[in-house]
Amino acid sequence: MKKIEHIGIAVKDLETANKTYEALLNTSCYKTEAVESEGVETAFFRTGESKIELLAATREESPIAKFIAKKGEGIHHIAFAVDDIQVEINRLKGEGFVVLNEEPKKGADNKLVAFLHPKSSNGVLVELCQEIPA
Amino acid sequence: MKKIEHIGIAVKDLETANKTYEALLNTSCYKTEAVESEGVETAFFRTGESKIELLAATREESPIAKFIAKKGEGIHHIAFAVDDIQVEINRLKGEGFVVLNEEPKKGADNKLVAFLHPKSSNGVLVELCQEIPA
Repeated sequence: MKKIEHIGIAVKDLETANKTYEALLNTSCYKTEAVESEGVETAFFRTGESKIELLAATREESPIAKFIAKKGEGIHHIAFAVDDIQVEINRLKGEGFVVLNEEPKKGADNKLVAFLHPKSSNGVLVELCQEIPA
Repeated sequence: MKKIEHIGIAVKDLETANKTYEALLNTSCYKTEAVESEGVETAFFRTGESKIELLAATREESPIAKFIAKKGEGIHHIAFAVDDIQVEINRLKGEGFVVLNEEPKKGADNKLVAFLHPKSSNGVLVELCQEIPA
């Protein structure tokens, strides 16, 4: 794991949360992006070498809608940057972690992503992110 | 906010969680430290310019014991590095955030810390951290 790529935060209303996080981080949102396959819209803020990603559901069956219904707004996942996502998936499987999608999928922000089940990492949903080469 | 200083993760058993996070992050824990005033023992891992802090309760009335009893293990807070914690507390109060301790207190890892109430930041417990000058 090279660094924290971003922290994902589940919010109810993206526009309101954007204003809150612009004030908190004292910086402007630099990108918004919809990820239709996940039923989410996202907003990104830079903080050092990492990002804060706000996530709002665009439909009821979105994982973010389900998360908020169960737990309320709050931190949803930690994403770590990796050089080679397939190598890292194989390494973590060998260490006994439960990989939710062994085939990396396209995420927001030009990334290939895979998730680890929270039960194998003390309740933390972990995302692996590899930049998609240009 | 300069960067993510660390992510705090509430765990039940520090020794077991240490092994898990050593495997996850592919790096060794570089420091453990007890914070008696908070009733916690902590373990730190480096990831890029940030850290992962595991937190385990050392007594029943610890905030970490209460958190785990209510929500289970998982991400407890995000800490941001700041240059001058008092300036940042004043700025955030002016923006309408609820500061839990307006007088910064001594935290783990040689830091002055202050917390923002999660209700003013979409369910996220935010910590401000300023390095204590030598």
